[in-house]
Amino acid sequence: MFCALRKQSRACIKRCLVGLSLLASASWAQPPQSLIVFIGDGMGPSYTSAYRYFADDPATEAKETTVFDQLLVGMARTYPGDKTLVTDSAASATALAAGVKTYNGAIGLNVNKERVEGLLEAAKKRGYITGVVATSTVTHATPAAFLVHVQSRQSYAKIADEILDDRINDKPKVDLLFGGGRKDFVRKDRDLVAEFRKLGYGYFTELSQLEQINQLPVLGLFAEEALPHVIDSGQLHLEAMTRRALNLLQSEHAGRGRPFFLLVEASQIDWCGHANDIACAMHEMRDAAATLSLLKEFVDRHPDSLLVATADHGTGGLSMGANNRYEWDVESVRRLGASASRIARELLAAGENWPLVWQSLTGIRLESREHQGMQQLLDRAKTLVAEGATDSQREIVRKGVVNLTLALINQRSHTGWTTRGHTGEDVQLFAWGRGREDFIGHLNNTDIAKRLHARLPALADSEEKSR
Amino acid sequence: MFCALRKQSRACIKRCLVGLSLLASASWAQPPQSLIVFIGDGMGPSYTSAYRYFADDPATEAKETTVFDQLLVGMARTYPGDKTLVTDSAASATALAAGVKTYNGAIGLNVNKERVEGLLEAAKKRGYITGVVATSTVTHATPAAFLVHVQSRQSYAKIADEILDDRINDKPKVDLLFGGGRKDFVRKDRDLVAEFRKLGYGYFTELSQLEQINQLPVLGLFAEEALPHVIDSGQLHLEAMTRRALNLLQSEHAGRGRPFFLLVEASQIDWCGHANDIACAMHEMRDAAATLSLLKEFVDRHPDSLLVATADHGTGGLSMGANNRYEWDVESVRRLGASASRIARELLAAGENWPLVWQSLTGIRLESREHQGMQQLLDRAKTLVAEGATDSQREIVRKGVVNLTLALINQRSHTGWTTRGHTGEDVQLFAWGRGREDFIGHLNNTDIAKRLHARLPALADSEEKSR
Repeated sequence: MFCALRKQSRACIKRCLVGLSLLASASWAQPPQSLIVFIGDGMGPSYTSAYRYFADDPATEAKETTVFDQLLVGMARTYPGDKTLVTDSAASATALAAGVKTYNGAIGLNVNKERVEGLLEAAKKRGYITGVVATSTVTHATPAAFLVHVQSRQSYAKIADEILDDRINDKPKVDLLFGGGRKDFVRKDRDLVAEFRKLGYGYFTELSQLEQINQLPVLGLFAEEALPHVIDSGQLHLEAMTRRALNLLQSEHAGRGRPFFLLVEASQIDWCGHANDIACAMHEMRDAAATLSLLKEFVDRHPDSLLVATADHGTGGLSMGANNRYEWDVESVRRLGASASRIARELLAAGENWPLVWQSLTGIRLESREHQGMQQLLDRAKTLVAEGATDSQREIVRKGVVNLTLALINQRSHTGWTTRGHTGEDVQLFAWGRGREDFIGHLNNTDIAKRLHARLPALADSEEKSR
Repeated sequence: MFCALRKQSRACIKRCLVGLSLLASASWAQPPQSLIVFIGDGMGPSYTSAYRYFADDPATEAKETTVFDQLLVGMARTYPGDKTLVTDSAASATALAAGVKTYNGAIGLNVNKERVEGLLEAAKKRGYITGVVATSTVTHATPAAFLVHVQSRQSYAKIADEILDDRINDKPKVDLLFGGGRKDFVRKDRDLVAEFRKLGYGYFTELSQLEQINQLPVLGLFAEEALPHVIDSGQLHLEAMTRRALNLLQSEHAGRGRPFFLLVEASQIDWCGHANDIACAMHEMRDAAATLSLLKEFVDRHPDSLLVATADHGTGGLSMGANNRYEWDVESVRRLGASASRIARELLAAGENWPLVWQSLTGIRLESREHQGMQQLLDRAKTLVAEGATDSQREIVRKGVVNLTLALINQRSHTGWTTRGHTGEDVQLFAWGRGREDFIGHLNNTDIAKRLHARLPALADSEEKSR
């Protein structure tokens, strides 16, 4: 095989090998790179498959691929640090941030409730600029596990406090925080927004102001609680926030010569999965895909950076095909114009015109017994209002309308669900940019964090650089 | 970056590059390689994840990885050539064999019902030795689509006929055929076994004879219909058949200097999925994993060969975690000692002792209302026997016992299912050996076939060699 090399002098071969080894090691000599972690909450493998068919252009014969297909490199196992085998978002986000398995509910703590260093803090200590973008409240489990260390994911006020109070070099760890959750920051007992402002943070509450945000640090809390579902607002809020975040972080990077760490969470895929609402999930996937495309384009323009995307777990036990039918009617999913929850609200408000509202929001033709079932529920709701029933009595009927709506959607589209909770199957792993090859194959979710931590520069070296 | 190279003469660099390019192109000069395709029928992503926890050694803290984890390189989309988005095994096997999307039910034909060349025939034309191993009948959809061209997967007799009659150079295409299905080969209208024997094929009907098989061509039909489920027989038949097949093919390869093509199908993962029987599925996965390990070891010993493994589709909508529980009780699955179908049979035969049989086969403690429910079904069955009821009347009660058994198993283990049919999520892709890197990332299932076809030598060239 090496016959062509035979006539070369040994010295030449040696020099050739030295040259090659230098070439191979050159990647280690490059400056610290910007890291972007994208988490699709609840985005098990069925979601990306279903989204491909949902996003497909029916006018062409080909089934177009998605950004998920383009970026796929492997899969990851998600079991938590307890015996359940099915993780929640807190344990999984802690695994993805800090590389340790922990108990369900833990925010940045190990099974012994000790602090474990997450990627965002490790990056910050090394002089990185840091950002977090989510469509949930920023105090929700996934962003929280990258930001703070708290025993229970339910302690939203405490999580908000710690985002301000748990500091590195006397400063909050996060330079850019976009999402929902004003209720946790402006409370009777404490006004965290005022405190952030005193520290020099810009503060914005309207997504229409995104373009006006032009410097860091910044706090953007664009809703009291979570942002609205994509299917109901018609807006790709995650993409919009991420676009602005990338601009700001990249400008700061260019200005100060420091790399950035950015966490982006598509938070509400999971919530639509919990609701067993397929159209709701597909529209959140639309925002996730647009955001991931944006991140991929960023990496294409800045090939020294690295994007790693995954899910924290599956939700709902979603399947295409259900009840023995070898078919998934994606057209019927595409026709849906609102979440089941909003459809129910509009039906309850519509009075006798409800069939028109139903038809326009669902495109589903009801058979007579289905029509009667819905009519009975709506009549019951009307009676309860007339009788001055309690909220909880009315809520039971409202849920009945939601559930009947979901049952009809799932039956028509042949969509299956096994649970309103999470599921334990492996999730997909996506990567793009320098270091992508580190993530090929099957990994533990903790390995994802460990390999990202390993890409951060050594501390002393980097502190030197960032001074 | 290349500073160390500066002092080297240009001539030396040039020679260095020539040497490298020869090294890079060397792989193309290698002889035709043996190809092994493994298909886990119905083995969607939830199955390999669940199997990891099922196979885990509970005595250690670590969750041990499996051969699936070691071999994972990507995923594949499986939609068929019609509008359903959910494939059957025939369309998917045709895609994996011939690289074309086709209608559900098609065996080696495209949507226009025209013949499409599969991997086994393409290999045979190039002088390869060919083998097929399955735990179903060898006339079942997956092996059939690699062997013949028939409009409907249901035409088992026709498929068997074609295995003999559809020839290349006047010989049957397959040199080694192991699996079930004697009923399709020895029929009133035709004795295919006698005809195969006339052509020089050895013929074996007992798995205990596997070690006695020492030359090709050979037909091993080890059951009238399919082989028994692993959970009920306690035997890893796929592993045993594959071990013998590898020995025979490799000996022939060594003796005649020709590479081989081998298809191995773990057929019954799918059937356990159709039955929604988790323990049954996990034991079939045990055989699949043992077989895949064996194949991996073969490739380790013969690194010029290539192993590609995948599933044709998911089955059942399996999930770990169901009914809102964030938990999968794998221990309860491990305790199960028989398929639900066999459990029902034994309960029906046990008379008053059924609770002992139940306890020993399932390990499930029944609550009193559950006990009563089962007692009522078994009493009803007894009455039907006493009354001389028809088989179909008794079958209804037998199914009732199976379904109650499954409901209890799934409820205790928190296992979810959405269908008795197939599902449309992407499947995993595994590869090992030379050319593994061709399969990294996300592929269409047809691309798997195309990339394998591309690894076969050009026809003229190879016919030359194989003469």
